[in-house]
Amino acid sequence: MTAKLNARGDVAVLVPAAGAGVRLGPGMPKALRALAGEPLLRHAVRRVAAAASVRQIVVAAPPAQADAVRELLSPVAPVTVVAGGAHRQQSVAAALAAVPDDVGIVLVHDAARALTPPDLIESVAAAVRSGLPAVIPVLPVVDTVKEVGPGDVVLGTVDRSVLRSVQTPQGFRRDVLAAAHASGADPLTDDAGLVEKMGLPVTCVPGSDLAMKITRPLDLVLAEALLRLP
Amino acid sequence: MTAKLNARGDVAVLVPAAGAGVRLGPGMPKALRALAGEPLLRHAVRRVAAAASVRQIVVAAPPAQADAVRELLSPVAPVTVVAGGAHRQQSVAAALAAVPDDVGIVLVHDAARALTPPDLIESVAAAVRSGLPAVIPVLPVVDTVKEVGPGDVVLGTVDRSVLRSVQTPQGFRRDVLAAAHASGADPLTDDAGLVEKMGLPVTCVPGSDLAMKITRPLDLVLAEALLRLP
Repeated sequence: MTAKLNARGDVAVLVPAAGAGVRLGPGMPKALRALAGEPLLRHAVRRVAAAASVRQIVVAAPPAQADAVRELLSPVAPVTVVAGGAHRQQSVAAALAAVPDDVGIVLVHDAARALTPPDLIESVAAAVRSGLPAVIPVLPVVDTVKEVGPGDVVLGTVDRSVLRSVQTPQGFRRDVLAAAHASGADPLTDDAGLVEKMGLPVTCVPGSDLAMKITRPLDLVLAEALLRLP
Repeated sequence: MTAKLNARGDVAVLVPAAGAGVRLGPGMPKALRALAGEPLLRHAVRRVAAAASVRQIVVAAPPAQADAVRELLSPVAPVTVVAGGAHRQQSVAAALAAVPDDVGIVLVHDAARALTPPDLIESVAAAVRSGLPAVIPVLPVVDTVKEVGPGDVVLGTVDRSVLRSVQTPQGFRRDVLAAAHASGADPLTDDAGLVEKMGLPVTCVPGSDLAMKITRPLDLVLAEALLRLP
């Protein structure tokens, strides 16, 4: 069943999915890896489309696979597919260029977080709508964390009470994300990191265990168990 | 089936399971929480007993439940049960006092890492045997990590390439662990942290996804899925 998006929504969600993954198997874009027989990207887009204030979903696909990605997603939701770039940030910029000017809130999502619930998408969007320029969903760091040096010798124990694990979607006022990408992006920095470098505040909101990143084989085992939950 | 431990082994494994304040039900220590119908502690001890060089397993139980814990574990492996203390480190010290003098390698384990494979226990022990005073199993940190300040505002992105998530068992030369605990332990520091404070090197070895800590309800879902794997 194809979801209808909210024509009066104020949110666009960008999903850069042009990267080839090596962790789950070479050759195949990470986002197309199957979870319970269905590509991660389709799981992710289905949940994004179920978020009430989403007006547009833009997927940046490998240029040679744009048609295939469009076809893959058409049963799930109406999606704008653009050709992605060589680096993730080029793909985000290409997707952002496809967003109409009157959409004020832009979220950047990761298809590998395929089970991210619509509620989390809404809570990130709501925090941006409340006036924050940039918002990220986070979880506390639960394990003891050490800093290591040469020879795998521990340099010290890190105070994890001030650390947060970052999830997606990251949410931005549209003009803030555009300015961050225009500022000469460091391709190794996440989108929120670009905003930090501009000197604007990035604010944390509570993330979700369900927004876990599905990259290692063990993650697929967990994700399939989650899908089986009533 | 009760496992036999290796009478000529050089390793003792301590499992502090006295609860230390975080209780899931009246009188029930964390370590007795059920996974697939069996307490975490029993899952953990079964795997420790399967490690080839383990001569002794010492469990520190809540004083009022020492007999119940002994009975719980007797079908799985021969275990020395001692009365635990009010804090985790008191329990570790009480368990260490029950280890014969000629056991040269002592590992400290966490029953919440109930699926830790015997291979990991052996690899930590082997690293200590090779001459290292203290060894911890670790995994890389996979998510982006931010440091936060007041108001949940991000202070900066942390370089996670030098960070490691710490698992158990942590392994020690017996005299090193004894000295660390005699040094006036900070009850909030892990055992390896006490060794760091003594100025001795703590060395990392590769951990295992299976040694995940089972604390949140979602962890139980994953752990049960792992148990169902062929």
